[in-house]
Amino acid sequence: MTTSLDFVNPRVRAIRVSEQTLLESLKPFKGVIDVSSGDPHRTGMKPISFVRQVLAVCLYPHLLQDNPFPPDVKLRAQRLLQICEGGSLGSYTASSGLHHVRQTIADFITKRDAGISANPKNVFISSGAQRALMVVVKLLSGGEGLTKTGILAPQPCPHTLPPLLDEAGVLAVPYRLMEDRGWALDLNQLRQALESYRGRCNPRAIYISNPGNPTGHVQDRKSIQEVVQLAAAEKLLLLVDEVYQDSVYGQNTEFLSYKRVLFEMGREFSETVELVSFHSLSCASVAECGLRAGYMEAVNMDPDVLKVFDTMLCTDISAPTTGQLALDLMLNPPEPGDPSYDTHAQELLLTRTVLTRNAERALEVLNDLPGFSCQPAMGGIYLYPRVQLPAEIREQAEMLGLEADVFYCQKLLEEEGLLLGKR
Amino acid sequence: MTTSLDFVNPRVRAIRVSEQTLLESLKPFKGVIDVSSGDPHRTGMKPISFVRQVLAVCLYPHLLQDNPFPPDVKLRAQRLLQICEGGSLGSYTASSGLHHVRQTIADFITKRDAGISANPKNVFISSGAQRALMVVVKLLSGGEGLTKTGILAPQPCPHTLPPLLDEAGVLAVPYRLMEDRGWALDLNQLRQALESYRGRCNPRAIYISNPGNPTGHVQDRKSIQEVVQLAAAEKLLLLVDEVYQDSVYGQNTEFLSYKRVLFEMGREFSETVELVSFHSLSCASVAECGLRAGYMEAVNMDPDVLKVFDTMLCTDISAPTTGQLALDLMLNPPEPGDPSYDTHAQELLLTRTVLTRNAERALEVLNDLPGFSCQPAMGGIYLYPRVQLPAEIREQAEMLGLEADVFYCQKLLEEEGLLLGKR
Repeated sequence: MTTSLDFVNPRVRAIRVSEQTLLESLKPFKGVIDVSSGDPHRTGMKPISFVRQVLAVCLYPHLLQDNPFPPDVKLRAQRLLQICEGGSLGSYTASSGLHHVRQTIADFITKRDAGISANPKNVFISSGAQRALMVVVKLLSGGEGLTKTGILAPQPCPHTLPPLLDEAGVLAVPYRLMEDRGWALDLNQLRQALESYRGRCNPRAIYISNPGNPTGHVQDRKSIQEVVQLAAAEKLLLLVDEVYQDSVYGQNTEFLSYKRVLFEMGREFSETVELVSFHSLSCASVAECGLRAGYMEAVNMDPDVLKVFDTMLCTDISAPTTGQLALDLMLNPPEPGDPSYDTHAQELLLTRTVLTRNAERALEVLNDLPGFSCQPAMGGIYLYPRVQLPAEIREQAEMLGLEADVFYCQKLLEEEGLLLGKR
Repeated sequence: MTTSLDFVNPRVRAIRVSEQTLLESLKPFKGVIDVSSGDPHRTGMKPISFVRQVLAVCLYPHLLQDNPFPPDVKLRAQRLLQICEGGSLGSYTASSGLHHVRQTIADFITKRDAGISANPKNVFISSGAQRALMVVVKLLSGGEGLTKTGILAPQPCPHTLPPLLDEAGVLAVPYRLMEDRGWALDLNQLRQALESYRGRCNPRAIYISNPGNPTGHVQDRKSIQEVVQLAAAEKLLLLVDEVYQDSVYGQNTEFLSYKRVLFEMGREFSETVELVSFHSLSCASVAECGLRAGYMEAVNMDPDVLKVFDTMLCTDISAPTTGQLALDLMLNPPEPGDPSYDTHAQELLLTRTVLTRNAERALEVLNDLPGFSCQPAMGGIYLYPRVQLPAEIREQAEMLGLEADVFYCQKLLEEEGLLLGKR
């Protein structure tokens, strides 16, 4: 009999990088790379030149004169310097971000959502999506015991979510995702979670990660519609983590934002359902994790509540200017015909191709490992395998007098270059 | 009789920039500049070239090849890129900051404090000093009613402090600073505040701003020693906001850190008194407010408490890399003999000279205004005038049927170019 290793968090902390046998070490891999942080630059992905060139010029405007940057880089840098107080990245910005960048974000959303308009005053820039989420969750928090705020949270969920809910003093109400359907969201699971926790806490919101972290699932229109209908019926706020929206690679898979689906469901929903969507500079293809910026768009939220939100963001002062401007460059990239367009398009394509290939390759590797089975990903940067201790490992461990799970982990590391870790 | 205008927060929101009479407007000033944010770049101060050059190269390392930057700029950029994961500013860092930068900070502190050593593991980098302070205050918070955490806070205090304490759920226990002694800290005021609030809350820390925001006062050794003795006797944590430590210009005035004084008082104090000191990229002469970085050093704090602190900082992910590297450049500037040394020294000198002159000029202007009196500043970037409604203004307003304070504010704006505002 095999036993489930449920108590070991099966998040993959590293995958083998090469199967080439090295005679020196006799191992079928060259080394172990830590990819658990979801940090592409750390593992060798290259920054996008246009973003970095414009930021370099903004930081040191003398480069406008004597450096051979393409003219659109210089033009953009000049425009961005104009929106900074005193023409310097060293000035504070409003706590919710530079107005110009909020407008760029609103324009991007409008275009992404086939013309459904976004208003910059509902867009708030923060030092990362995580930070904006924390502030919203704190706004919702309250109560004690049976009245304590609850937020429906998927299982599995981003590893950052449980400590965030915990610090905000909110109860996580777990709903299971369906592994056998590629980690799809099942409405019955949501309903059951809600029913079983009503009376035990005060459920106020549904948190959704789409494209899914760590599952790689991407919801289709029907699935999103069902969630919206439930939120409408139960008067729940939708907290939608859409930070991997530009990393979708599954066949016939398209990213549809919750906002777009909501608005295409008609006014009954588009004028009532409260929704907050998060996006991030770190999780997008540009992957500028170190520059720290993200944003949220609030839909159908009470303006007075947004004022409180803004006040709470104030204690952070603001997101860094370098991150804010990088958001602007990411969401308003060079257009066809611009001098930087070709290079930029090639770099982005390369980034996305590598991501897609890595997802396929990692899936193969995982499914080849003894005891592993893994659903393919349709988007995002994670895979979420199931791990079951093989019977022969258990027997070998018993013979050697070792703990079976420790023995298994050692074998995976020594023989496959895969490190299993507890979060 | 004159009446105090205590209900109008006398923070000066703008000072007149020129007395030259403009015939067009017949006003004795050209315009009104908002200096209330304490943001030097916004009002025209120039960034420090060395900081910006190195950051530009770090962001776009191709500049190492083809740009005529001084060799020490390139060398430093190369060194800083090596400490970033994957050689990119786009990678996450540890939540408490890049180890190399924490070491630079520790070295700076050691040098500043005449050799009293600092350990990088007690240094935590955050997205600004404000953010680190918030996390520490939250660690201290707790209790309800009579057991609620109290923190002694000066009056006047930085305008950001009351909302911070409030959000953290901590009671501010006010102690008065002595205006007639240039806003010096008086130990009796601290003692009285403590006595009158003991039993009404649980005082756990003393917050001190030195050089003083908004008072401009700089404490001498004796004054700091008294506070340390009180903290030791009453087992209070010292939260010392030292963000203006490099902006001291009063005659015969020297900045002494609380840590240095504490250690020079002998082991009875240096091994027991808990102290947290804050410094900031925004408030220092480089004034890189937009890049968002600051740090705190903890002294005599329980390592387990620091672990919790680190975990709490984790929800921010980390301070932006651009800010962290700017801290490194600020605290480890070019040395004599380095190619960038002369320019760098001149730029810093200019910045400090302008600051000193502005402080003198603003003091003259304020003391010339009807109803104003102001203590000179010894450091920092604020002046804190007393405002008393002149008798003739009150009479004129009465004749005109206007509210006296509104009339007074209008006259100051129209005739002097000075805008009084409520925070």
